Amino acid sequence: MQQVYFDNAATTQIREEVISAMTEVMRTNYGNASSSHSFGRSSKALIEKSRKTVAGYLNVSASEIIFTSGGTEADNLILCSAVRDLKVTHVITSKIEHHAVLHTIDQLVKDYKIAVSYVDLKPNGKIDYLHLETLLKNENKTLVSLMHINNEIGNVLDLKRVASLCKANNALFHSDTVQSVGHFKMDLQDIPVDFITAAAHKFHGPKGVGFAFIRKNSALKPLIYGGEQERGLRAGTESVHNIVGLETALKSAHDYMATEVAYIKDLKQYFINKVESELPNATFNGKSGNMEKSTYTLVNVCLPIPPKKAAMLLFQLDLKGIACSKGSACQSGSNQNSHVLTEILNADDLQKPSIRFSFSIYNTKEEVDYVMTVLKEFSN
Amino acid sequence: MQQVYFDNAATTQIREEVISAMTEVMRTNYGNASSSHSFGRSSKALIEKSRKTVAGYLNVSASEIIFTSGGTEADNLILCSAVRDLKVTHVITSKIEHHAVLHTIDQLVKDYKIAVSYVDLKPNGKIDYLHLETLLKNENKTLVSLMHINNEIGNVLDLKRVASLCKANNALFHSDTVQSVGHFKMDLQDIPVDFITAAAHKFHGPKGVGFAFIRKNSALKPLIYGGEQERGLRAGTESVHNIVGLETALKSAHDYMATEVAYIKDLKQYFINKVESELPNATFNGKSGNMEKSTYTLVNVCLPIPPKKAAMLLFQLDLKGIACSKGSACQSGSNQNSHVLTEILNADDLQKPSIRFSFSIYNTKEEVDYVMTVLKEFSN
Ligand SMILES: Cc1ncc(COP(=O)(O)O)c(C=O)c1O
Ligand SMILES: Cc1ncc(COP(=O)(O)O)c(C=O)c1O
Repeated sequence: MQQVYFDNAATTQIREEVISAMTEVMRTNYGNASSSHSFGRSSKALIEKSRKTVAGYLNVSASEIIFTSGGTEADNLILCSAVRDLKVTHVITSKIEHHAVLHTIDQLVKDYKIAVSYVDLKPNGKIDYLHLETLLKNENKTLVSLMHINNEIGNVLDLKRVASLCKANNALFHSDTVQSVGHFKMDLQDIPVDFITAAAHKFHGPKGVGFAFIRKNSALKPLIYGGEQERGLRAGTESVHNIVGLETALKSAHDYMATEVAYIKDLKQYFINKVESELPNATFNGKSGNMEKSTYTLVNVCLPIPPKKAAMLLFQLDLKGIACSKGSACQSGSNQNSHVLTEILNADDLQKPSIRFSFSIYNTKEEVDYVMTVLKEFSN
Repeated sequence: MQQVYFDNAATTQIREEVISAMTEVMRTNYGNASSSHSFGRSSKALIEKSRKTVAGYLNVSASEIIFTSGGTEADNLILCSAVRDLKVTHVITSKIEHHAVLHTIDQLVKDYKIAVSYVDLKPNGKIDYLHLETLLKNENKTLVSLMHINNEIGNVLDLKRVASLCKANNALFHSDTVQSVGHFKMDLQDIPVDFITAAAHKFHGPKGVGFAFIRKNSALKPLIYGGEQERGLRAGTESVHNIVGLETALKSAHDYMATEVAYIKDLKQYFINKVESELPNATFNGKSGNMEKSTYTLVNVCLPIPPKKAAMLLFQLDLKGIACSKGSACQSGSNQNSHVLTEILNADDLQKPSIRFSFSIYNTKEEVDYVMTVLKEFSN
């Protein structure tokens, strides 16, 4: 049976050169990077080279990159320490952030009695910048946490605008950039954000490794205590092969970005065109139908399918070999609606099934055609 | 130049079958285990199979195993949640625990004002069981955290005795078993410990993955918040290849345990004999010179080398291709004495260099001979 993987926002296929680099490291560099002997030093050198590479792509210094076990841990590290160590007492965020941010903030509310403000959203999921500005006018030590690219609807935040607003109002700014690192170029000298996060598996790297960018002199402290790894900010023997995998994946992403972005954009445009011509009653959630205002990797489509049939939709797609998702992967097992769509859709549209299709370089127009055929069959 | 890796307590060479299994998973199973489609389900199945395998070796149920990014994170998860969520107000530990435990407790003292008691140690590093019993007689909600096998001096705790003491006194018991999982068989139906931890890289598995055993109904909560992975106890997309690597390494460790333990024991005995005959003024730290009372994988030798030369010892060994360590790896870069030896050695012995040599199946008697030659040269 044909297999179509259109769930690249959940995770991506690992590039072959990434697997090779990791296998090579596992075979030849097994030293503990904290050991002072030659075995340890060569592992340490690999990690520091990776750190430099990552820093280079973001135009920051290597000491500002802290490797973690993934995007979630990086978000937790930053949010927890901002509250505990930087004495943040007020967090501004939005209801359509990833759970790695929202659930962490919930816990911080319980533990530290911080105040949380949720910035207003437009029906297309866009944040209300004026409301954000109002929220920033307060005396509390404030951290803003707003994601760069929404993983469900693809909306893109104006990072520079928010960063400047935060700076002007003396607030710290964390952006979950898990869906944008490795997908877009980013110059953090130009964008005065304090903290960003990434996960390698979103850009064809391995699962279980990511990083936090923590701007110099931020005075953050660890989430995980123990040895002096990662300049004392993240204890635990480093996953050398995973870190080298992250580096290799990020390098490939940047080396091939121009052609690959063009390829995926073309695919998304093709998908949108097909939906518009073949499923005329379908709509696009958030800004995902707008090529300019959403990321090039995903669309989130609200389908004109009667409720009875709708319940079976994901199941049917799966039977036909099509992998896509209802919301973020970490909710996809459950029957709950996506917390993102719940925020932005009206009651009518919430009744209809919404599906996220997310693309990568490994997808083709033939796959889009196949998915369209299945969707059309199902809509009748 | 000859290369001798005698630092297997810091980390181990990855078994070839582990690397193959991981590479295979990375090539063929890139789904996100939280996705409900076939790609996701097959990743999920791999993780659940790994969990079952691990649980089987410990004789516990699969739901009691939580995969983490390593031993450090597992220790942090248990200690932090015991204090925050189980309302532990008193921790009993020892001054020779790993920093993953000691530094985490330090932080908990700051954040939650818990009381900490350090159990008395004998000069050989043995804990004073009577003192432990006295410490347990108090009204506070207490957690005991004592490691199974000390990573620097190899002392073995009587897990069952401590677990029973804790039970009798209504205290929770956490044991850092990072140096014993994959090295010894353990039946957790027979040992009423509440929490143990492990790291795959200590038993020829990959770095950056480990687990916490959390006994049923413990009511722990996450350290890292976000998605519902690991039954809601550890958010973040699972590192499927690393988890399968851990499983494969643990399986090999158990499959070959009888012969491999015998092989390494023989090597350690050979090393001890050589030291006794060729460096008669050397002594063994802790109980590491006692084949019965210490782990079979390491010795920690206090060498009769004059202070001036001693400063150069590790450096010289490294120049000769010999990898060994002064303390735990996470301290080995620093010039500080090991916190473990500082607790148990007298001032005189602390002046002399102490070196930990730790062995694995990949070592040979010829390597021991070579190291002895170098040590003898250096001692003259
Ligand atoms: C926007 C966003 N943030 C955070 C995460 C969490 O990353 P990870 O699961 O790798 O920790 C994800 C993906 O799962 C994501 O899409
Ligand atoms: C006894 C002990 N506990 C915890 C750890 C931490 O394990 P990891 O560095 O893999 O997190 C180690 C090794 O580094 C150890 O030897």
